[in-house]
Amino acid sequence: KKKESEMQLSIGILSCLCGRFKALIGKSKAKVLELAKNTKKIGKDDPRRVIHSLKVGLALTLVSLFYYTRPLYDGFGIAAIWAVLTVVLVFEFSVGATLSKSLNRSVATLMAGALGIGAQQIASFSGEKGEPFLLGTFVFLTAVASTFSRFFPRIKARYDYGVLIFILTFSMVSVSGYHVEKILKLANQRLSTVLIGGATCIVISIFICPVWAGEDLHNLVAHNLEKLASFLEGFGDEYFRISESGEIQVVSKEDKSTLQAYKSVLNSKTTEESLANFASWEPWHGRFRFRHPWKQYLTIATLIRQCAYRVEALNNYTNTNQSKAQPEFRRKIQDPCTKMSSESGKALKALASAIKEMKQPSLASPYLANSKTAMNDLRTSLKGALSNATDLLEIIPDATVASILVETVTFVEKILEAVKELSDSANFKPAEPLAISMEKQPAPRNRGTVKPTSDGDIVITIHEISPTRAETQNVQATS
Amino acid sequence: KKKESEMQLSIGILSCLCGRFKALIGKSKAKVLELAKNTKKIGKDDPRRVIHSLKVGLALTLVSLFYYTRPLYDGFGIAAIWAVLTVVLVFEFSVGATLSKSLNRSVATLMAGALGIGAQQIASFSGEKGEPFLLGTFVFLTAVASTFSRFFPRIKARYDYGVLIFILTFSMVSVSGYHVEKILKLANQRLSTVLIGGATCIVISIFICPVWAGEDLHNLVAHNLEKLASFLEGFGDEYFRISESGEIQVVSKEDKSTLQAYKSVLNSKTTEESLANFASWEPWHGRFRFRHPWKQYLTIATLIRQCAYRVEALNNYTNTNQSKAQPEFRRKIQDPCTKMSSESGKALKALASAIKEMKQPSLASPYLANSKTAMNDLRTSLKGALSNATDLLEIIPDATVASILVETVTFVEKILEAVKELSDSANFKPAEPLAISMEKQPAPRNRGTVKPTSDGDIVITIHEISPTRAETQNVQATS
Repeated sequence: KKKESEMQLSIGILSCLCGRFKALIGKSKAKVLELAKNTKKIGKDDPRRVIHSLKVGLALTLVSLFYYTRPLYDGFGIAAIWAVLTVVLVFEFSVGATLSKSLNRSVATLMAGALGIGAQQIASFSGEKGEPFLLGTFVFLTAVASTFSRFFPRIKARYDYGVLIFILTFSMVSVSGYHVEKILKLANQRLSTVLIGGATCIVISIFICPVWAGEDLHNLVAHNLEKLASFLEGFGDEYFRISESGEIQVVSKEDKSTLQAYKSVLNSKTTEESLANFASWEPWHGRFRFRHPWKQYLTIATLIRQCAYRVEALNNYTNTNQSKAQPEFRRKIQDPCTKMSSESGKALKALASAIKEMKQPSLASPYLANSKTAMNDLRTSLKGALSNATDLLEIIPDATVASILVETVTFVEKILEAVKELSDSANFKPAEPLAISMEKQPAPRNRGTVKPTSDGDIVITIHEISPTRAETQNVQATS
Repeated sequence: KKKESEMQLSIGILSCLCGRFKALIGKSKAKVLELAKNTKKIGKDDPRRVIHSLKVGLALTLVSLFYYTRPLYDGFGIAAIWAVLTVVLVFEFSVGATLSKSLNRSVATLMAGALGIGAQQIASFSGEKGEPFLLGTFVFLTAVASTFSRFFPRIKARYDYGVLIFILTFSMVSVSGYHVEKILKLANQRLSTVLIGGATCIVISIFICPVWAGEDLHNLVAHNLEKLASFLEGFGDEYFRISESGEIQVVSKEDKSTLQAYKSVLNSKTTEESLANFASWEPWHGRFRFRHPWKQYLTIATLIRQCAYRVEALNNYTNTNQSKAQPEFRRKIQDPCTKMSSESGKALKALASAIKEMKQPSLASPYLANSKTAMNDLRTSLKGALSNATDLLEIIPDATVASILVETVTFVEKILEAVKELSDSANFKPAEPLAISMEKQPAPRNRGTVKPTSDGDIVITIHEISPTRAETQNVQATS
């Protein structure tokens, strides 16, 4: 009987262990699966990441050949390891970043090497006792000055890595010179291996599926414009639909996520700035000239972000229950507000595609004019209108939405101006007047004229109501 | 005569050269002066920068001693250079950043060293021809996998530098092992020099005028709160003053700059996130425990930023000319709006000082209650009010300001909740009920009671009007 219970106990322990083991396996299986899923997602989100990883592997393997190949190794010896080091530290995702880092590294190594040799020579005059003392002083002073210089915003932005490598190489050369007599050979080896490593990175990053920071910036700005545009295009319907029926309708999740896409624009400043910095290191490529006005993209991006702050304020009103709205006031503003919003959205979309295709943004102007017309419609219908509102409180949300929309229109105009400036300085092609744009663009109500001409063309004339400048825009389309 | 003209010519050339030389000297003098001015400004803005530079110099000089001191040099040989390298690459401004980098570097070196030796051993079994091929494959695969892993957001945030050093060391050890037979010695030397360099950095950065990332984050959040607070405190007067007199009054530049200080809050996300990351590496220090809830600061910071978006929208209305304002409507909203704004500002200021002094934020609640009272005053005075406005357009700016202020108050409440959570999880001390806060805080109109008690204390009871929860707050003050 005792044996039986012992058996049972050991079976129990075994089964318990088995269970734990199975749970452990299940857990790690789940973790591995999750990792695989994550990996797949990250690769799918941007397939260039996979290519980049392969490129780094390739560059590193190529540089390792220095070690494996007897004649090359004999030339450089153990210093060949610097080439490996350079590749790992310098190879970045975009061409601009790689160029910036390798140029910084090469120039800094050259300068610091020369200065280091000089410092070592000066120190050697001061006798065996004075030499380490003098060298220590040199290293200390250089380190202090260089480290402090990294706090200068301009240096921080463009030459931070260079200054780091400068301190590094200077200390290494001047310090190691104290023992290694062949200091010139060391500096020379280090410089040439750094150059070889840097050159390998540059060649591979430019010639194998290059990732241009400039192109990324270009697309990011266009993409951010599109995000704002989708919000504005959808906002009018979203806001007024809710309140017409008196209760919140459930919006499909997909709609909601397109509306919320603009949120990422609010915090894209850092990305844009580093892309613009890297882009300025890049040579002529594809559609971009050597001195493409990258800074103008930052100007546009800042305006887009300011517009996004307004959109953030608008977004708050799609979420709150507006059932108490005042029907009379609302009737007055619904049409012009919806129009202001959707036409601004269309204008932004036209600007985005103008940037994408590098064409002059003239197609956006009619939409902007339309939204200004709507703005003036709003003004005239409200101005002098006697209000029968018994409850001012009920007017407030609608009034706020109208007011923020007016602000948004002014920002759309500013963005248009900035894109025009970009188009001028980057020599964008003139936009072809498209027949399609005709159909999409609603005829300006009461304020423009649409006249077919004798030769089958259509001329739309839009009179802007803005008192300061009456502008007449002609859009010709072949019907 | 010819000689004379030659003389004149040469004099002319000389004076021209002299002029140029003088201009050059003047120019470089101006540049040097500007540089000196800039340097002084950068040092003055944050004196810790100067100290940091000196600390780097000290660390580098200390590590250089390895080279100068014969017995130490004999132990490590040329590998001692790795210590210099480590110091330059690892020493960062804050303790957290330095710790994060040195720990990343040490652990990565250890792991990659072990794996590199393993790879080298495996490869050595495959004969002289197979070895370089196999090693190349190992390096390629490791580089590809590690580079790809850097795209994972979690690894990118905390272990980016570690992964970099991992690839570096792995390739170096496995590749150089092919030639240098004493691979174990190399790995050992590299590891111990890295440890020495890292330890030097850590000791110096912790024990000589330490800069704690956590403290910086703590202060940054409090400071951002203060910036919003100054805007809100000043906004009411600023906005209504402009329009009362019917024209824009010139605001003193100083006032303007305090009002505009909030702009930096809009783009502080990146800074906050990196500070929080570094803070999580830091040990117990000063007023901060080991597991201080750094993430909660990010939650608060996000709310502050969302509040700043509203403030940005408000700011637009201080700049536009409001001369057309509707006096009747304005009279209704001026008092409650000014109060909402200034009391919200006071609440934020109280929250900021609660964070700074690490005390419970109870002193902010009365201010919040006051601004809510004002909000309800606004509601009741607008609700059911017959409007005699002949011009709805004129109401719109004021209505917008009121509406955004209401939003701001809800955000202030959210911030208060978040700070309370922080105070709970970080065990902030209870706030001492201050006599000063009594005088500063205006008595809640009609909705609270102020009663002197028999023992000379004063009890203020504030009834919140919010229908969902009627909260009674007692503030005791010794008069």
